[in-house]
Order: sequence, then structure tokens, then C-alpha cells
Amino acid sequence: MGFSVINNKKIVIIGCGAGGGTAAQFARKTDRKAEITIFDKGNYSQYSKCGLPYVISNEISDFKDLIEFSETWFKKENIKLNLDTTVEKIDINNQIIIAKKGKIIIKQEYDKLIFATGAIPSIPKIKNIEKNGKKLGCVYVLRTLDDGKNIVSCVKKDKKATIVGAGLIGLEIADSLVKKNIKVTVIEALPSILQNTIDDDMREPILNEVNNKINIITNHFVKKAEGKNGNIKSITIMDRETKKEKKIQTELLVTATGTKPVIDLAQNIGCRIGVNGGIIVNDRCETSIKNIYAAGDCTEYYDFVTQKPIIIGLGSIAVRQGITAGLNAAGDNHILPKGFLLTRTSKFFGIEIAAVGPVKNKCEKIPIIYAKLKGLSLPDYFPGGQKILMKVGIHEKTGEILTAQAVGPNSAQRINTMACAILNKMHVDDFKKLETAYAPSVAPTLDVLTLVCNVASLKLNRKRK
Amino acid sequence: MGFSVINNKKIVIIGCGAGGGTAAQFARKTDRKAEITIFDKGNYSQYSKCGLPYVISNEISDFKDLIEFSETWFKKENIKLNLDTTVEKIDINNQIIIAKKGKIIIKQEYDKLIFATGAIPSIPKIKNIEKNGKKLGCVYVLRTLDDGKNIVSCVKKDKKATIVGAGLIGLEIADSLVKKNIKVTVIEALPSILQNTIDDDMREPILNEVNNKINIITNHFVKKAEGKNGNIKSITIMDRETKKEKKIQTELLVTATGTKPVIDLAQNIGCRIGVNGGIIVNDRCETSIKNIYAAGDCTEYYDFVTQKPIIIGLGSIAVRQGITAGLNAAGDNHILPKGFLLTRTSKFFGIEIAAVGPVKNKCEKIPIIYAKLKGLSLPDYFPGGQKILMKVGIHEKTGEILTAQAVGPNSAQRINTMACAILNKMHVDDFKKLETAYAPSVAPTLDVLTLVCNVASLKLNRKRK
Repeated sequence: MGFSVINNKKIVIIGCGAGGGTAAQFARKTDRKAEITIFDKGNYSQYSKCGLPYVISNEISDFKDLIEFSETWFKKENIKLNLDTTVEKIDINNQIIIAKKGKIIIKQEYDKLIFATGAIPSIPKIKNIEKNGKKLGCVYVLRTLDDGKNIVSCVKKDKKATIVGAGLIGLEIADSLVKKNIKVTVIEALPSILQNTIDDDMREPILNEVNNKINIITNHFVKKAEGKNGNIKSITIMDRETKKEKKIQTELLVTATGTKPVIDLAQNIGCRIGVNGGIIVNDRCETSIKNIYAAGDCTEYYDFVTQKPIIIGLGSIAVRQGITAGLNAAGDNHILPKGFLLTRTSKFFGIEIAAVGPVKNKCEKIPIIYAKLKGLSLPDYFPGGQKILMKVGIHEKTGEILTAQAVGPNSAQRINTMACAILNKMHVDDFKKLETAYAPSVAPTLDVLTLVCNVASLKLNRKRK
Repeated sequence: MGFSVINNKKIVIIGCGAGGGTAAQFARKTDRKAEITIFDKGNYSQYSKCGLPYVISNEISDFKDLIEFSETWFKKENIKLNLDTTVEKIDINNQIIIAKKGKIIIKQEYDKLIFATGAIPSIPKIKNIEKNGKKLGCVYVLRTLDDGKNIVSCVKKDKKATIVGAGLIGLEIADSLVKKNIKVTVIEALPSILQNTIDDDMREPILNEVNNKINIITNHFVKKAEGKNGNIKSITIMDRETKKEKKIQTELLVTATGTKPVIDLAQNIGCRIGVNGGIIVNDRCETSIKNIYAAGDCTEYYDFVTQKPIIIGLGSIAVRQGITAGLNAAGDNHILPKGFLLTRTSKFFGIEIAAVGPVKNKCEKIPIIYAKLKGLSLPDYFPGGQKILMKVGIHEKTGEILTAQAVGPNSAQRINTMACAILNKMHVDDFKKLETAYAPSVAPTLDVLTLVCNVASLKLNRKRK
């Protein structure tokens, strides 16, 4: 008889963002004895990337407040967090990782490996931004805590700033700069703002508010930059149709034009990469290689409605995939729904917007009936009710609710209810019978949720007759 | 060959509250030609009963603002509204109704009849409230617009008022009187406030707020009253256990101790009446008599979770039954879910509360696992997040979500999402995977909705092991 050696499971996670950090936490919840190790290139423990704009605006007083789980926290949970550490090589045959921290080489065995390598900003090429290997000052993205600190160092009252990209993050940054008394221009290459968030016909109430506060220029891209004393001074933008050029003074340039998954390590070892450039994962967050999982912005998974592969870039999804990867790596059996709903929200310049399901231009081959309605947050007779614009998309054949969008107070919580309906593949005629909570000072007898579904139902039934 | 006579369908509705008025509107939507007639005892067109407290507090400036659908509106829709008209007899064999308006007798044929006779307050007997057929002044209920006007006439700054009943309506009235600088005492016979709305363990954050603003005395009932110059001057309350008595000065007494369905007409013609004293209706709002429907507070239907018959008294449900009765009477085929969820909400003294599904003491025979959680409306690091207390009840065998309660900001919209989950008989393990909308300034990555379901899921899985 030999010795009985108890080997605790070794779980290694690359990346300590929302996906990786959450994976570690949930792995620990399932397996109290596992050896859990995280490697992260950066020098901060798990923090909220989405919170960065609010430090710029001073709503949150310090960048360090964004750290949600400190190094001490990980230590307490007996999770070995290695910051400033770069994974150099993965040997999948022997299940060993080679990482480098300064000059120290770390060899780490794994039983289960989780990629949570995140994404990096895709930055459009702008002439003269870099000269002789030296970048102009006050030209940044907002992805990391250090990016945030850099932007703050360029923020001075009454200066002018330009944001490239009018997506959710671009507009959140614009709002934060306006709160610091900066004059903001937003340049968008597409024909309108928020193209990936909401449909064209939902923009009016947003533009009504936003156009008073910032200068939005759509259909333009940034062609070149000019500097002075090493800092940015102006940019030249060009109309995509007329090719007309225009010069804009700016003392700060922030690019917010989307991200691309970080997949080099995964690709090198042969993980399947999807059409959108993300690591393909299944509903258990497993990659194509045994014992290797992936979670968060580096992954590619399905859209629940279109069933097309998509890359995501939402913190809420990174967390949900992190939970899944962490639990499964630790031996649980956690299965995600057959696609992501893309429930999303934001608030800028006082307007709350939220949506779930793909935008219209991503639904080409699906026959969808759309209904739209302007309602009030309170009954007509109650003072203080605010306008809510709501839209719902239902399948012309099955009657199932597929998408919903809202602009106005409590949009996010209203969209959560629609998300629940979509996940349950609920027929619009069943949804319109749902009892919603009513009290004059809280919500109308028939909430705008119900009313917009009534309109959709009418349209559906007319089509069928 | 004879003449071909086109007879438009005759739909008669008794009662023009939320149930009756809505029934008329939806009947009209389905059948543009039907002869639709409403009889109502009162002298106001369809108005919001739930809005009455807010006129008392002056948040709504005039009682007439509560009228949601005016006589003119009904006229435009070609709906014949007879106010001040009492239905005296219904001849179900010949399908004729005899009504009386002053001295005028109205005979009205019907093809379809809808009872929407509502409910009247159940008033506990209090000694000396009435003497020689004359009632003390400033003793009221709050059910009708005239009740509201009467209360307002007794509201004078720095006076004292007593509310009997600490349910939702009692507390809404208390709030409205405090806003008018009245000192309010609330007497409740049961051991605590809101016994039919939320569970015992949800009351703490409410009492913390409410106890600073009003004086709540539970476990007491009002024994007798004393008057002066014809108006109320004081009441004597008695402890239900110790039988100890106490005198309370009060210049206004409002009773809010529930209601009972108005069923006399329906009962006289033989409609089946339920154990709770309401007109029994099915999922089409049909009564036991052919061609006769009922909607709203006069009806008795099932609780979705317990499948026990209940009477309801919620405006939101009256409207939904009104829609159903109206559509079906007009020839449509509209079917309600197999029971009511009782989604409910209110806001008083600045606190929003909401709930769905039966309270704990109504679920005796169902094995339920409860989970409770105190969360925040925003991520920890974001300033201004408010506390939310949330509770969920799931079936111990099936894992289905059955009940949910919330106290805190946006409780109502959060409870709507839970209502959607309950209606879909959603398993808690599926719900916890639902993507909720996240943005630092709007809601946390994992909303309190998700977190409380995580706790319930853990408890469920532990029980199964």
C-alpha cells in the first residue's frame, strides 16, 4: 500500500477584471480547498472599469474607490493574486503556465485554466498623433485606471475636449467632462449616436437633451491631429460623404470606438477563435481545448435572439460568464442560457436609457413587428410624471417578445422585466396580461411596459387577419 | 322572404369604476357598433379612487383632476353613461334591466351584462358613532370622491386625526394628513402594520421611517367614541390582550379596514357567490349565469400561487378584469392567467414598497423556502445608493419562484420583473442567470433581484443535498 496523497485542484485564471475576479470568487465558493491563482498584467486589483467616468467627473472622489475587491480581500479568500505579471507561455500537454513578474519566472501547474484576458480599445488611425515614436499628450482612451488618471491630468476648467465615438462610453465620458466645465465635441463616424444600443427612432428624446450640452458631429471621422508643445491642439475631421474637412480646437482627445478581444495566448495554443475575433465558448464557458475556460470581453458567444455569434463587452455579462467559468472549473455544473440578451443601460445628461435584445439592424433575417409608445412614469392625473419612450419588437410568426428599448425614468428596471419575458420566450399576448404594480405615486395602472405590448399585440393580430 | 334586421349587440355594464369603465372602453374597441350602456349610482364619471389621498395632501390640486374618463369622453365613444342611476331589478329570462334615475324608470335590454359593482368599506362597529340616527361629524371612510371632500372639510392645521387600519390605504391617508400638518395616530387591530401586503420580517425599514412621523398603535381596536357639538372629539381604544383601555383625542376619524364586494343584484338573480363573498368568475370573467360577466372588486377569483379563491380590491386587477369582461362581452376571446399574482405597490413617507404573490401566512400548505437580502440600488462604490430590502419565496420541491417583496427605491419595477418570473413559473436557478441591466449610475452588476435569488438557490440546493 502506498501513500494516499490529497491533491487539491489547481485553478489558474489569466486576468483579474470582472470576468477573472468573479471566476476566482465563485470557484472559491464551490471548492474551499482548491489552489486558485490569478495572473494579471496590470497593477491594480479587481476594479470597476465602468466606474471610471464618474471619477473624472468627481462624483466618485478617488480612483482607488473603484477597487471592488482588494489584494487583501483575495488574500483572505486564499486566492493567490499575482499583479504586474505577464503570462508568456501555456503548455497544454503538461498543463503548465509560464509567467513573468519583472525578472522572476513563475511556473504554475493547472488542472483548470480560465482566460479572462479582456479586450483592448480599437483605436482609429489618426495622422500625426504619433511622431518619431512619441505620442501627443492629452490623447487617450478610457479603459484602465491609469487611462482615467491620465485624462484627469488633462482636465482643466474651460478647456475643450473631443470624444471620438458616440456610443454609451463616449457619451458617459462626455457627460463627465461637461460636469467639469469642459466644452465637449463628440465625433461619430456613423450616421447617429448609440448605433449599437438603440434604434434610430428612439434617439429623439436623447438628442433633445444632449444637443444642448455637447456638440455632436456625426458621419465624420478624424483625419489628422496637430500638436503644440507636445500636447494636442486641434484635429481635422472629414465628412464621410462630402469629404469636406473641418478643423476643431481641442486640448484633450479621448477615443471610445469599441474594443477587440485579447486572444493571443488562447490563439497560440489553438483555442478556436470566432468570426468576430473572440475565443469561442459554449454555455459552460468551455473553450475548444479541454480544461480551458474563458469568460468576459475576450470571448465570443451567441446572441439569444439572432443566435449569431457576437463579442460583447458588457461588465454584467463578464460577471455572469465569470460565475459560470469559476463554478464549472471548480467542479460545479453551471449552464448559461443559449445566448446573451444584451440587457444594457446607461445614464448621461440626466437621461436613463436601457435596452435588451439586438438593435434593428442586427435582425435582418428575422420577421419582427415593432411597436413604439410614449407613456408617462405616473398616471396622467399625478404631478411629476416623466415621459418614457418605449419600443418592443416581437416575432411576426411566433408572437414572442425579442427586443425592447426604453428612454426615461426607471428604464433599466423596466427593461429587466422585458429581459425576463424574452428569456422565457413569452408571447406578447401573455405579457400584456402580466399584472404590473400600480399606485398613483409609483406607476400607472397599465405601465408603459404593458401599453407598448398592447400596441404590438394589435399589430400582430391585424397582420394575422 | 322577410326583412333582414341588423341588431347591434347590447352590452350593459353596472358600475363605472375602474372595472366597469374599462370594460366599456374595451368592448367599444372590439365592437364599434355595439350599444353600450353604463349605469352608475354615483354622480361622477370614471375616476381614480387610488388618487384620493393625494388630493387630501394637495399634491393633486382638485378632486375633479381624478376623473380619468369624463362624461364627454364616454359620449364621444358612443357609450351611454347613466349616472345617479340605480339598477333595481334584472330579468335574466328576458335579459332586461330595470333601473331608476330619480323618478324615471329605465328599461334596458341586454345581450351581455357586466357586473362592476365594486365594493363598500367594511366598517368596524364603534359605540356612540351614531346617536338617534345621527352620525358624529368628521368620521369617514375614504372610498368615494365625496368621502374625500368630506375629509378635506375636516382637515385643519395642527388638528389631530386617527386612522383605523394600518393597511396600504390607511398608511397612504396617514401620509396625506401628515403633509397637511395633522398629528396622526393609526390604530391597528392586528399585531402589525401591512399584514396583507408584506411579511413580518420586511417591516423594520418601514417602521424605522414611519414611527418618526405618526403614532402607530397595534393590537388595539376602537371601542367607543365621544363627540362635542356633533363632531368627534375622542375615541377609546382597547388592547386586545390586556383589555386595557386608553382615550385618544381626535378631531377626525378615518376608517380603512378593508372592503366587501357589492353583490346584492348578482346574488338576487342567482349568480354563484364565493366563500369570500365575491361573485365567482372564471378566466373569461364569466359568472355562473349565461351572458353575464363580472369584473373588479365585486368578484372572486383564484390566487395564482395558492389557487385559493380570493377577493382582491386592487385597481390594477379591476382594470385587467374590465379589459377581459369588455372584450369577451363584445365577442373577443380574452383569457386571463389561472389566478392573480397580486402585484402591488405603494409609497408613503418617502418609502416605496412592492410585493407580488401571497404573504407568508396565506401559504400554509405550500413548502416554501424564503431568502432575504439587504442590497443597494447602486454599486457599493457609487455615491447615493439607497438600501433595498428584498425577499423571495420559492417552492421547495419545484424551485419555482412564488412570491417576492421589496422595500426601497424602484421596488415596484423590481417586483414587476419578479411577477414576470412567477407568471412564467420560472425556476430560481434560471432566474439568477437573467441578465439585468447594469451601469454604475443606474444599478449594480448583480441587482438585488439576482442576489436574493442566489441566496434562495443556495438554500434550495443545500436542502436537496
